[in-house]
Amino acid sequence: MLFAERKIVLASASPRRLEILRQIGIEPLPCPVDVAEWQELTKQRGAADLVGANAAAKARAAAALHPQQLILAADTVVMLGDTLYGKPRSADEAQAMLAALSGRTHQVYTGEFLLDGANGRSASGVDICEVTFHHLSAAEIKEYVASGEPFDKAGAYGIQGKGALFVEKICGDYYTVMGLSLSLLRHLDRIVSQGMGGGPAAKV
Amino acid sequence: MLFAERKIVLASASPRRLEILRQIGIEPLPCPVDVAEWQELTKQRGAADLVGANAAAKARAAAALHPQQLILAADTVVMLGDTLYGKPRSADEAQAMLAALSGRTHQVYTGEFLLDGANGRSASGVDICEVTFHHLSAAEIKEYVASGEPFDKAGAYGIQGKGALFVEKICGDYYTVMGLSLSLLRHLDRIVSQGMGGGPAAKV
Repeated sequence: MLFAERKIVLASASPRRLEILRQIGIEPLPCPVDVAEWQELTKQRGAADLVGANAAAKARAAAALHPQQLILAADTVVMLGDTLYGKPRSADEAQAMLAALSGRTHQVYTGEFLLDGANGRSASGVDICEVTFHHLSAAEIKEYVASGEPFDKAGAYGIQGKGALFVEKICGDYYTVMGLSLSLLRHLDRIVSQGMGGGPAAKV
Repeated sequence: MLFAERKIVLASASPRRLEILRQIGIEPLPCPVDVAEWQELTKQRGAADLVGANAAAKARAAAALHPQQLILAADTVVMLGDTLYGKPRSADEAQAMLAALSGRTHQVYTGEFLLDGANGRSASGVDICEVTFHHLSAAEIKEYVASGEPFDKAGAYGIQGKGALFVEKICGDYYTVMGLSLSLLRHLDRIVSQGMGGGPAAKV
């Protein structure tokens, strides 16, 4: 129903973003791109600026390879208070992230950038979803980390996997937590495919 | 992580409930049961009482077939204001439901009943999730109804399918909208498997 039946290039290697697009009937062309690590930027920027900048960088890198195509890029981080969490780099880091998230509410930020090389239009935005965790026992954190699920996920959990059991409730777009907000994408598609407005369209 | 590694009987024919349990690593024994239609009850009961009573009836029907087992049953309805929506019985009804939900916030009620035939313990509850829809065009409602997705779903949409594009945001447990609240199930499991309290454990 989105993208007016045009082929879309997904500037991401995330299997979850691919899965979300397939769920709504879209088979994108995956185009994993290599951009500067987000960690470099955390000291100077807030989470919304950060995911927005990273999504833009990924989209532009993919556009260089596919100049006439419709390109979608996204980036996701987790914020707990003032602390930003990306993907854990070790079992200890995953365990520490989950212990910190236990029994508390955090925010998941997903930035998206949609760019149409054919007409030069682009739109971007950031969606935020609040996630409240149950109190987790040390034993269940350990078991979950041992399952391997945390390692390629911002905040060390997958809401669409066994990590679903950790979530008491969310407020916002579930797909933002998975890594690609469909609510925001619907909005960006209106701008780029249908020419309703233009330029940055931040929901934040 | 739930049910202390015991086999669970799922008193439901819903492929989505089965999928949710598989996602968290549980392979239940499906046991579809035939209970009095919920429509019969709507005039006398509120939505929470209704899904609670239906989940209990399904659990007891399955327990009659599997008296020594751990049984899980659930029931889901959609409430928009004072109007209760079950599964649409025709394309016209699906179209009318989606037009009513368009641009508004509704509540999804999922009742669950967990019953252990081995020790006689049971626990039950109802979880409610608020769902806000985007404004939908007549064309997209028509296209969605033609896809066939609405027909086996309370409220005529599947949040885990193409219907995801209709949802602006939710507040609560995503899995309640899919038909089996994991947040509530975690709570009921504590009571039944671990003996923490007993009797009705309504979250409502």
